[in-house]
Amino acid sequence: MFGELARGAIMPLASHSLSAFVPHDLRAPIPGAASGPLAGLTCAVKDMYDIAGHRTGGGSPDWLAAAAPATSSAAAVRKIVDAGATVIGKTICDEFFFSVTGANAHYGTPVNPRAPGRLPGGSSSGSAAATAAGACDFALGSDTGGSVRVPASFCGVYGIRPTHGRVHLSGAMAMAPSFDVAGWFASGPGVFRRVGPVLLEGVSSPARVEALVVLEDAFEQADAAAAALLRSALAAMAADLPTPKEVRVAPEGLDPWRECFRVIQGFEIWGIYGEFIERRRPRLGPGVRERMAFAAKVSHRDAEEARRVKARARDQIRRLAKPGAILALPTAPGIAPRADAPAQALEAFRANVMRLTSIAGLSGLPQVTIPIGTVSGCPVGLSFIGWAGADEILLDLAVRLSRHCGQQG
Amino acid sequence: MFGELARGAIMPLASHSLSAFVPHDLRAPIPGAASGPLAGLTCAVKDMYDIAGHRTGGGSPDWLAAAAPATSSAAAVRKIVDAGATVIGKTICDEFFFSVTGANAHYGTPVNPRAPGRLPGGSSSGSAAATAAGACDFALGSDTGGSVRVPASFCGVYGIRPTHGRVHLSGAMAMAPSFDVAGWFASGPGVFRRVGPVLLEGVSSPARVEALVVLEDAFEQADAAAAALLRSALAAMAADLPTPKEVRVAPEGLDPWRECFRVIQGFEIWGIYGEFIERRRPRLGPGVRERMAFAAKVSHRDAEEARRVKARARDQIRRLAKPGAILALPTAPGIAPRADAPAQALEAFRANVMRLTSIAGLSGLPQVTIPIGTVSGCPVGLSFIGWAGADEILLDLAVRLSRHCGQQG
Repeated sequence: MFGELARGAIMPLASHSLSAFVPHDLRAPIPGAASGPLAGLTCAVKDMYDIAGHRTGGGSPDWLAAAAPATSSAAAVRKIVDAGATVIGKTICDEFFFSVTGANAHYGTPVNPRAPGRLPGGSSSGSAAATAAGACDFALGSDTGGSVRVPASFCGVYGIRPTHGRVHLSGAMAMAPSFDVAGWFASGPGVFRRVGPVLLEGVSSPARVEALVVLEDAFEQADAAAAALLRSALAAMAADLPTPKEVRVAPEGLDPWRECFRVIQGFEIWGIYGEFIERRRPRLGPGVRERMAFAAKVSHRDAEEARRVKARARDQIRRLAKPGAILALPTAPGIAPRADAPAQALEAFRANVMRLTSIAGLSGLPQVTIPIGTVSGCPVGLSFIGWAGADEILLDLAVRLSRHCGQQG
Repeated sequence: MFGELARGAIMPLASHSLSAFVPHDLRAPIPGAASGPLAGLTCAVKDMYDIAGHRTGGGSPDWLAAAAPATSSAAAVRKIVDAGATVIGKTICDEFFFSVTGANAHYGTPVNPRAPGRLPGGSSSGSAAATAAGACDFALGSDTGGSVRVPASFCGVYGIRPTHGRVHLSGAMAMAPSFDVAGWFASGPGVFRRVGPVLLEGVSSPARVEALVVLEDAFEQADAAAAALLRSALAAMAADLPTPKEVRVAPEGLDPWRECFRVIQGFEIWGIYGEFIERRRPRLGPGVRERMAFAAKVSHRDAEEARRVKARARDQIRRLAKPGAILALPTAPGIAPRADAPAQALEAFRANVMRLTSIAGLSGLPQVTIPIGTVSGCPVGLSFIGWAGADEILLDLAVRLSRHCGQQG
């Protein structure tokens, strides 16, 4: 069922470049409106959002080959351009968004400009890398199982996964609609916040932040150095945050949540791409191939059972993240894995990551990650999850806490 | 004449923090105007600009101790706040701005967030470090002999030294008025450009960029790895730039220019701080002490002779940088020196740096540095010098070339 990855299909990319942009990139920047809240800023866009006149690839050369040029741009792209930002390019992402490493076997892996020799994280890898390199002011990504949060953490930039449903996804390729959210990266805190009102729709739910819940079991997923850095950062922020309270979000362990996330994600991605994969037999890169094979086998019954677990997890998480309470957790278990890590190590790494990222994923709650500092010279992000509609509050929080960035582990 | 640096005077700073901000920092952020071109952005300010109600230290605890709180804020600070940016803090700088390393013996050396274990560059060290760490969107610095350009290059952010005289310096401490210019840093290209119209005054001189002059002798000052990276970046930008022409800017060598810069700088800084130093005998850190001792000895005749060399250099440089022509050069000779480099090595490094930075300094011409990429994982900047009043053109150029950032050496 799965085509082999042809060696000759690997795109030759100059070894010295950032490799953040796709080969089928824009021929010229798309100029933003002359005025607006993002006037004069530049933006890169993950190759999952339609851009009028261009084909959308979703990290797969075979999907790209089968695609027709988009007749109009995705809603999020239109809003950004109307708000004044110039779109400078289409960025590489993980194949069908089905990875958190940033390794793309077809287009090459974008360089992590802040962690030499390490992966950028994915699936919004090129958008994170371009932002971190200073190639743009901010970048559009999307987050299903960590695809904004993880590369933001690894590349040392701000990232947000908004409340599920708060950003229109029309004109964007889907991955697993129960979890899919548009998100963005920025290198500066004010720019990060400024994109919010442009893209966020629906119900904003402002409330004063009066409780800080530190997720003890989430911190246990991080390695010692990252956990120590993040806890020391929280301590340094004491004057800017409520008194912390340590709580275990998942008394039965985070594994059942990760597993139900994995099952629903697999079921939904197969619903979207299964027919294409069976019919066209696209070349699939390592890891993605195995995950698609798993996705193909998830039954309706599996998915239903997983959705029951999801509903319970969602209730449990939302009980903690009630309006006025924010949850603190490590964005990822530590710094980015080495770019030459063996496939098996990356699978284990993925499992660790998903224990952390499935918390916001299952609950549909918003999460911001702040480039709080470095361990061994490589970036580490600190995350806060808020209640539904707390997106604006989390963006304000990121600005308020930004002064503490630059902690050294 | 020179007080000794008392060991006990070294401020204890938590080893885990960025150390970019002064101990006598703002008690709360200064909120920006609700609307304006910089609305919602955050800014850090070098501790050489007055902020109403606060004392200005210029990197010297003894100067700080003798200072009265400012009755009003510096013009540049007022403009930034009126344009909407929130000032989040006052940043550490080199003592009396008299160094390009970023090492401050009294307040500690700000961490270089992009080059672990290496100096941030100075004298606007804390502003560059805060920007690079994501602690703010942009930051105010100043540049006499490289104090914006060098830390921007070392910390991997955008930096500009505007045309001499194009930013009002009222309310800012002076260093060497013949060369002093306010400048700024930003992590994103659009933000970098957006600060321009807020701060730049006087005559803007727009012209189409039709010639690219690569300064061969400036490139010879860079180490092999940095020069190779910068040349490969220029090659990658071919479609965005005129055909390059290799020229030697200083056929008699760059040393006489560096030397005349050093003499005028010494003469002028002593004119400004000499009386204070003789009267108060402040503790001066290593390097600064020796340079102040040199400055004290520069005679009127030395300064006059140096000014004649300066006038010739200025003519020579301005003949190359005529309207429509930009000069490309390495911002610094390479990546930042190690933080534990011996004093002697830093003196030699300073001499190498000044061969490059004195070109814009002596000519009074604007220069931008772009965070083009990394060598051994540490940032390297690519610079362009323009004609007088080309500041806006150079900011536009930085945005146009930003997509090429992320080159790996």
